[in-house]
Amino acid sequence: MTATIIGLGLIGGSFALSLKDKGLCDKVWGIDHSERNAAKALELGLVDNIITLDKAIAESDLIVLATPVDTIPVLATKILNRIGKHQILMDMGSTKEELIEITSMHPNRGRMVATHPMWGTEHSGPEAAEHNAFTGRTVVICEKEQSDEDALRQVVSIYSTLGMPIRYMSAEEQDMHCAYVSHISHITSFALALTVLEKEREEEHIFDLAGGGFESTVRLAKSLPKTWAPIFLGNKYNVLDVLREHIHQLQILRRMIERDDRDGLIEAMQRANKIREILK
Amino acid sequence: MTATIIGLGLIGGSFALSLKDKGLCDKVWGIDHSERNAAKALELGLVDNIITLDKAIAESDLIVLATPVDTIPVLATKILNRIGKHQILMDMGSTKEELIEITSMHPNRGRMVATHPMWGTEHSGPEAAEHNAFTGRTVVICEKEQSDEDALRQVVSIYSTLGMPIRYMSAEEQDMHCAYVSHISHITSFALALTVLEKEREEEHIFDLAGGGFESTVRLAKSLPKTWAPIFLGNKYNVLDVLREHIHQLQILRRMIERDDRDGLIEAMQRANKIREILK
Repeated sequence: MTATIIGLGLIGGSFALSLKDKGLCDKVWGIDHSERNAAKALELGLVDNIITLDKAIAESDLIVLATPVDTIPVLATKILNRIGKHQILMDMGSTKEELIEITSMHPNRGRMVATHPMWGTEHSGPEAAEHNAFTGRTVVICEKEQSDEDALRQVVSIYSTLGMPIRYMSAEEQDMHCAYVSHISHITSFALALTVLEKEREEEHIFDLAGGGFESTVRLAKSLPKTWAPIFLGNKYNVLDVLREHIHQLQILRRMIERDDRDGLIEAMQRANKIREILK
Repeated sequence: MTATIIGLGLIGGSFALSLKDKGLCDKVWGIDHSERNAAKALELGLVDNIITLDKAIAESDLIVLATPVDTIPVLATKILNRIGKHQILMDMGSTKEELIEITSMHPNRGRMVATHPMWGTEHSGPEAAEHNAFTGRTVVICEKEQSDEDALRQVVSIYSTLGMPIRYMSAEEQDMHCAYVSHISHITSFALALTVLEKEREEEHIFDLAGGGFESTVRLAKSLPKTWAPIFLGNKYNVLDVLREHIHQLQILRRMIERDDRDGLIEAMQRANKIREILK
């Protein structure tokens, strides 16, 4: 099988490696609007060749969209306009409602499978690509009934070969759940980094004193803004909903501290401890 | 040297292991107000014996306080009241202003060294104790001029043997910096866990979908409430100050998302990215 990956950063680059490592593709080609990233991906051996979109559409069995989420609906439509009956288009974006809406009436919609592999790191670019990145992580497939059976079967078999449990959801469900378990974590991390950088002028102290705790809560603040701004805006209503609740919870804790409400704090933290059972 | 550790949880238990692993003490005794923890610490070999405070004061060269921070000032005073000229008392608490104030006029103040090793995990109790826990982590020593030279020298040599860089600060500085780089991370983690538990009724989804990102930002929410409530209240004014700034930063991001301010979001996240250079 010949695959073309569009977007050769952390996700696309890691997926390219997985396709080759697992012997799923004999040829993996790449496209990236950044010449530097394209050259780097080739140099790192993530892809065998850098090609044009025309060649990708003419000669690929599988086309994979791993670009920022705000670019996916338009790119997907352009590709569906020209894709053949035996070719497959898949995306790996973190939000889905807009993509599903934009493509819903497209006569070739069936050739597309909308997926979201639940893996990422705070690093970015081709250099951040990892072998076996996705193994053991869950992948969400959205609105599977809108995909042709053969296309769905092919994509499912790829993810299964990578060792990924598959969950089927509507675009609405996926965007809501991802706001809770992924997007909000990034927002709080960015805000925490801004807080500390704002307050803590003596960087030396941050560096010296930051124990493992600080580093893990702020790690995601290293993530790529051009990746995450479109995700927050593309999932605006869910993200705002969770963000509102998060600020509310912080205000409750703040009032308890103001009032020296030791018992209230302990009770709230004991409820928070329940996360322990969920994340074994 | 004979040491007695008071408080045989994560910190005290790990310190007991370090004292033995590095051959710093031939005898390490333990005290814990929880019979269960005391028995467990003995069973796990963290300490050689469980003793009384009387025996500790009568026979220890070094007494280490690793109990919740709200219990340290009173315990420290009781021990200083009865400690001898060649014995040393040290604490490992995360806040220092109250301890330093309470003990400041004590005639035996010089026998005490106030320390805060910058290490911890979200786990608790004797079972959470780790070998080589502190190696490579910074330790803060507060108001060193109030400690007798021999006591300070002894404690410095213990921490140096554990491979810990030492930073000297006033209690005020230490409490302020720790609010930024440790205490606030725990509050945001607890609030994030409460947010998700509040919003996300289908725990199954949290479990399935939570990528590495969520797990790392929420990890600290597993921490022990009885440890952290006293820290937040003991460092109330610094914690409220940082918490106010953190909520402010979240509100700024929220407004940008509400207004679809893509450029503003990207600019803010790029500023947050600076944390990358600080935490290499």
